[in-house]
Amino acid sequence: MPKPNAFYAQSGGVTSVINASAAGAIETARANKDRIGRVLAGRNGIIGALTEDLIDTSKEPARAIAALMHTPGGAFGSCRYKLKGLDTHRAQYERLLDVFRAHDIRYFFYNGGNDSADTCLKVSQIAESLGYPLTAVHVPKTVDNDLAVTDNCPGFGSVAKYVATSMREAAFDVASMALTSTKVFVLEVMGRHAGWITAAVGLASDETTPIPLVLLFPEIPFDEAKFLQAVDERTKAFGYCCVGVSEGLRNAEGRLMAEAGTRDAFGHAQLGGVGPLIAKLVKDRLNYKYHWAVADYLQRAARHLASKTDVEQAYAVGKAAVELALSGKNAVMPAIVRVSDKPYRWKIGVAPLSEVANTEKMLPRDYVSDDGYGITDKARAYLVPLIKGEAPPPYRDGLPQYVRLKNVEVPKKLASTFEP
Amino acid sequence: MPKPNAFYAQSGGVTSVINASAAGAIETARANKDRIGRVLAGRNGIIGALTEDLIDTSKEPARAIAALMHTPGGAFGSCRYKLKGLDTHRAQYERLLDVFRAHDIRYFFYNGGNDSADTCLKVSQIAESLGYPLTAVHVPKTVDNDLAVTDNCPGFGSVAKYVATSMREAAFDVASMALTSTKVFVLEVMGRHAGWITAAVGLASDETTPIPLVLLFPEIPFDEAKFLQAVDERTKAFGYCCVGVSEGLRNAEGRLMAEAGTRDAFGHAQLGGVGPLIAKLVKDRLNYKYHWAVADYLQRAARHLASKTDVEQAYAVGKAAVELALSGKNAVMPAIVRVSDKPYRWKIGVAPLSEVANTEKMLPRDYVSDDGYGITDKARAYLVPLIKGEAPPPYRDGLPQYVRLKNVEVPKKLASTFEP
Repeated sequence: MPKPNAFYAQSGGVTSVINASAAGAIETARANKDRIGRVLAGRNGIIGALTEDLIDTSKEPARAIAALMHTPGGAFGSCRYKLKGLDTHRAQYERLLDVFRAHDIRYFFYNGGNDSADTCLKVSQIAESLGYPLTAVHVPKTVDNDLAVTDNCPGFGSVAKYVATSMREAAFDVASMALTSTKVFVLEVMGRHAGWITAAVGLASDETTPIPLVLLFPEIPFDEAKFLQAVDERTKAFGYCCVGVSEGLRNAEGRLMAEAGTRDAFGHAQLGGVGPLIAKLVKDRLNYKYHWAVADYLQRAARHLASKTDVEQAYAVGKAAVELALSGKNAVMPAIVRVSDKPYRWKIGVAPLSEVANTEKMLPRDYVSDDGYGITDKARAYLVPLIKGEAPPPYRDGLPQYVRLKNVEVPKKLASTFEP
Repeated sequence: MPKPNAFYAQSGGVTSVINASAAGAIETARANKDRIGRVLAGRNGIIGALTEDLIDTSKEPARAIAALMHTPGGAFGSCRYKLKGLDTHRAQYERLLDVFRAHDIRYFFYNGGNDSADTCLKVSQIAESLGYPLTAVHVPKTVDNDLAVTDNCPGFGSVAKYVATSMREAAFDVASMALTSTKVFVLEVMGRHAGWITAAVGLASDETTPIPLVLLFPEIPFDEAKFLQAVDERTKAFGYCCVGVSEGLRNAEGRLMAEAGTRDAFGHAQLGGVGPLIAKLVKDRLNYKYHWAVADYLQRAARHLASKTDVEQAYAVGKAAVELALSGKNAVMPAIVRVSDKPYRWKIGVAPLSEVANTEKMLPRDYVSDDGYGITDKARAYLVPLIKGEAPPPYRDGLPQYVRLKNVEVPKKLASTFEP
């Protein structure tokens, strides 16, 4: 008798290690063939489930699944598509269950951030209310590191390593040119609401490699005069200054400093451009020659510089999700629990989705220095373990070799279609 | 009897491997103690020579010099400062010789691009005309890869590896999100006049990993309608499109698409911003959701992703410069000579500075595909060997460990000062 199938989908902005979570889930399901049939993945995330566009991961050889460990992006496609309220858009949820029923899907693994944790919770609720036997487990992912309960989020450690490394390298460049060229360098980083990535820029500077930094956190309202003074002081003292600025920097009125004007499917403003804005300000007011960089997707796709800790944790939460489901846990998320800082030790715990969904974990104020422009020792103790270790991908002809799956479609079984 | 000293300085924009050339020169000088006393480095490039601000590299332990092999930026400081004409500003050149005479400097190693090759030539000429015994050798360096005679320039291979890797990684990200999010991604890269770095972006896509790319070279005038058609075609066919654009992109009238308005010490326009401009154009005319990144200094400082070939060649030209000087060659530059493509083999040759100075090597038209938006097999055959091999720096606590030298000042001997 065939075993029930599992559904796995990736949601929201991808990371350089979300595929490692996919590998963890799929390999663990394959290791439990006596209880799970096939893992069917949603093409382009939850949209694949709604439109019955499913990928049969059993068609992929073991080596392709293993190669997901070192491949950035979302191997099955992801999407920015948020299911609406259960009361107002019940048909969407019923459609999901129709598809699950048609393909004998009894396990629902949803790999995403806050929004998808909420979706995962709602799916588990409607399944229960309709009497459909579904076990729903959320797999944490987000570069923003803003998920509640879990000590950190897979995806964040690698971005943190990337921005800290990039700023350190740029600082060596700027320092050597500052006498006659660029004196102020500005790096814009991601992190819409929470300053975790901005804080990670602070790791570029440490005792052995001090760098004059000014960090602009999204949580701290931008004070132009005070900022310019901080940059001027450091530039006069060290000959140069490096600024790390969050894309989500806001002014005292709470307005984004750089509002691009467009919004994504969740209604979030599409950001970008605060880096050049800050650089221009420095030039106009202090007359220092400047350069700026906007890493944008490069930071969250940079699998070549992934944190080994991050890769391992991403795999672990994918694996744990399947194990939790098999042990009968429903509407939960495997969380990373920090056991100790030095040496860094962690384990997998369990968080109820009701505590995770739609909650944002902001950077604690005591992770930011008193002047608001740096990080504290407490922040370092938290951040350093997350960027530790290297996990380079294989290279050929000088370039990383990333896998593209075959992504074989599962034949449709439903007569009806659905417009998401 | 003390041996004559050598002078070494870094000039112009630094690279992730220029310090490997410094290591090559200093270690080779140290290995020839019977003929060269100390290597004195100019603090902040040639300005250090003019102001008698010299660094005694003999104060650095061997392990610090060895660590230059994996440290980006310019370890002694570089500068954007071009010596003016010999006829009009003879005093500058005479000042250089005063400083050299005071410190018994008989070897002049100048590590830079076109401008510094010209300076190196002029210094050798005035030394000869004034009867001062100086051997001047230029050490090639530039991320732009636009130096004449040499097959390629140290510094370029690592930038090429960085931009190709970054675009490949971003493409995996964009491809997985394109259905509901970003469809067009734009990466702005360096390369003021010559499209070598833009061409390297083309390596992101190959037979095993095809990526829909549109490259905008500085040599090919921007044709808006044709460009938009190319982007639209690829986006419709593949669901997404990646654009690599040179900071030096020009319109049909030869004007820079993004002129920042400021100019550096050489009178070159300070560029930046064509990436967002192109992205906005795609949004306005084609209405595709876009993202853009400007890697700026990150690309030329990214020692963590350096090409092993590049590091080896950077060291080799530093080493060869000293060997050439010791063999009596004057007003020359060690050049990289390509012996074969497959397998890639290279050796060091010798180029007279008169053939190198102030000449720019542009990207050949037959390296660019007929439509002007891609690279040819000929370009690949040239480029691939240059990005081959990895040479990661040591890491500690998750971050690359780069060396900062003590940079001990040589006591001044001249009563006079000089304002450069």
